[in-house]
Amino acid sequence: MKLLAAPNALKGSLSAQRAAEAIAQGARRASSSMDVIELPVADGGDGTLDVLLANLGGEAREVEVHDPLGRTLRARYGLIDCGRTALLDVATASGHARLRDSERDPLRASSYGTGELMRAALASGCERLVIGLGGSATVDGGLGLLAALGIPGLDASGHAVALGGAGLSELTRFDARAISSLTQGRELVCLCDVETRLTGPDGALLYAAQKGADARAEAVLGAGLERLAVALEAQSGVNARALVSGGAAGGIAATLCTLLGARLVPGIDFVLDQARFERKLAGAALVITAEGRLDRQSAFNKGPFGVARRARAAGVPTVVLAGSIADDFELEATPFAAALAIGREALTLDEARTHASSWLSATSEHALRLYLLAREAPRRP
Amino acid sequence: MKLLAAPNALKGSLSAQRAAEAIAQGARRASSSMDVIELPVADGGDGTLDVLLANLGGEAREVEVHDPLGRTLRARYGLIDCGRTALLDVATASGHARLRDSERDPLRASSYGTGELMRAALASGCERLVIGLGGSATVDGGLGLLAALGIPGLDASGHAVALGGAGLSELTRFDARAISSLTQGRELVCLCDVETRLTGPDGALLYAAQKGADARAEAVLGAGLERLAVALEAQSGVNARALVSGGAAGGIAATLCTLLGARLVPGIDFVLDQARFERKLAGAALVITAEGRLDRQSAFNKGPFGVARRARAAGVPTVVLAGSIADDFELEATPFAAALAIGREALTLDEARTHASSWLSATSEHALRLYLLAREAPRRP
Repeated sequence: MKLLAAPNALKGSLSAQRAAEAIAQGARRASSSMDVIELPVADGGDGTLDVLLANLGGEAREVEVHDPLGRTLRARYGLIDCGRTALLDVATASGHARLRDSERDPLRASSYGTGELMRAALASGCERLVIGLGGSATVDGGLGLLAALGIPGLDASGHAVALGGAGLSELTRFDARAISSLTQGRELVCLCDVETRLTGPDGALLYAAQKGADARAEAVLGAGLERLAVALEAQSGVNARALVSGGAAGGIAATLCTLLGARLVPGIDFVLDQARFERKLAGAALVITAEGRLDRQSAFNKGPFGVARRARAAGVPTVVLAGSIADDFELEATPFAAALAIGREALTLDEARTHASSWLSATSEHALRLYLLAREAPRRP
Repeated sequence: MKLLAAPNALKGSLSAQRAAEAIAQGARRASSSMDVIELPVADGGDGTLDVLLANLGGEAREVEVHDPLGRTLRARYGLIDCGRTALLDVATASGHARLRDSERDPLRASSYGTGELMRAALASGCERLVIGLGGSATVDGGLGLLAALGIPGLDASGHAVALGGAGLSELTRFDARAISSLTQGRELVCLCDVETRLTGPDGALLYAAQKGADARAEAVLGAGLERLAVALEAQSGVNARALVSGGAAGGIAATLCTLLGARLVPGIDFVLDQARFERKLAGAALVITAEGRLDRQSAFNKGPFGVARRARAAGVPTVVLAGSIADDFELEATPFAAALAIGREALTLDEARTHASSWLSATSEHALRLYLLAREAPRRP
């Protein structure tokens, strides 16, 4: 039997690669003759660069950039296709993992470091730059990112506005002089893991609270994102508010799309295309994917959903194994054939995380034992 | 497809009956055409009476007896077979659930109330008395139980010894005058859920600590159980120490066997025989059983093991769903075909218990979805 092990990362517990290994180990314990293809996936969230490099081969380069609060760090971007395509994640320089809980403040947090990383990647001579947008700690609409690319946001007096989400409150327009040279002959692709517009209460603001904004900060950011939308539309002629994923990465998506001509694509589909998913799926009886948590809100362009949708289109069912499954999760609303949680002991989340690999492996093993049992059972009328 | 739902209780969370219902609900969600037979099981542990009454029909009667510390309580015994067979659990009057944590003390705790319950059951005119031995809070070797039946333990001076495990230290013999009238024409059956001998460090003493004994109490009880073995052997001619389950219920098994001629049988086999397990199993493709916790120590005569052993003998595989599964659990050492944990969130044990029914139901549902998927999959060479 052929099995495709195509998990997302279990955020905070296991990378997608480690998750694929765990599923494969369990599968081989269930049956030593199991043919397992490991295909770790990502949807534009934290770790997308590593998944793409692992699946496609390539080279990682490291440069010094700044974190959301302006501290220096070494950050990586990747090159594939003999250097023709460069890859980077917003989360690398501007992500949650860079900040302690007490430091989270989207009024201050800036995407400047991601702009520096883009500058380094573009300087490599790539023809295409692919940016994973998930996991950002910022709601600055790419203000910092553009500043690092030499395109500062300006206030009504023509002075550069402050960095961080608070700077959007003063924004009137961008200094457009550097824009054309950056985009000339380059393809920019943004990998989105959410469908969130730039403005409105269900827009980029939706994630502000989990990035550390209180009610007052949310009000400031909401007004700032409205100013940003006006500036982008005036400068580009594109309706920034209408972009389905324009609010991804605190609005970076809308800014890169309108000002730099970036394409916004569902991250999972890009990753699956690159990995030649359908070719690897051919002949498989079953797909096992994995995710940290499933609930009613689990978005449809998250990794495992994309895997299951495309597998189903090819006639192959997908089972999802999750770190946890909320009571409100409804299988019928998903493309999954079954959903099993991996927890084998009553433990706190932090304790449980240390068991993630062995639990995922054990659940894969036993789910497949059950599956094989049924395949081998005599069929009664 | 026919499914047999034959779970044990999930101790502290769900009765066997509620567990069978939860499994059946999940199975019907997986497929509305699923033919589910609910067969809650018990192995002689707490709740065996209720499972037998639920499976077989019958009548419960209530009498006033004494708990392990001499407080009165209303306790039930059951009558089946038109009153020919009486049923009771040691745990009802003499179990853990009767005591607060601070009250647990096997030097004091007495099985007197179980003797009172036996007396009431015998007075009903039954031909057979079946006693579930699991879940006792006592290590008194049945000293209290016999006293309630009019067979006091005597010291070297011929005086009745104190009740509780401490009384064994003075025991020399039992006043045998009442014995013959009790056993005349009656069949006594003890349902054992452990294989534990009366004496030695792996004997009844093995459970003394979890019944509240400290090291000093264990020493006193260990010596007392040795004196009990000598007394039983002298009085009955039977080698009490050789009985495989003689240590069940703090030694009650050995005492009832040697002095009153009780048969010691694995509880699960008795329960399955009474429920006509093999007849209900006929035509089933799969058995789902359940248990609170699985680990390397999970004893082979615990309910789910007996279910799986007998199902396997009939060619039907068994999947076990458990509240938790320890890392040291080894499937190969069990009769199960697969083992899945039911926990869907990282929670403390107390929190998790409140979800036991919905989690068991969901895990049953998704395990069966996976099973049906495999049954319906086209078979590739």
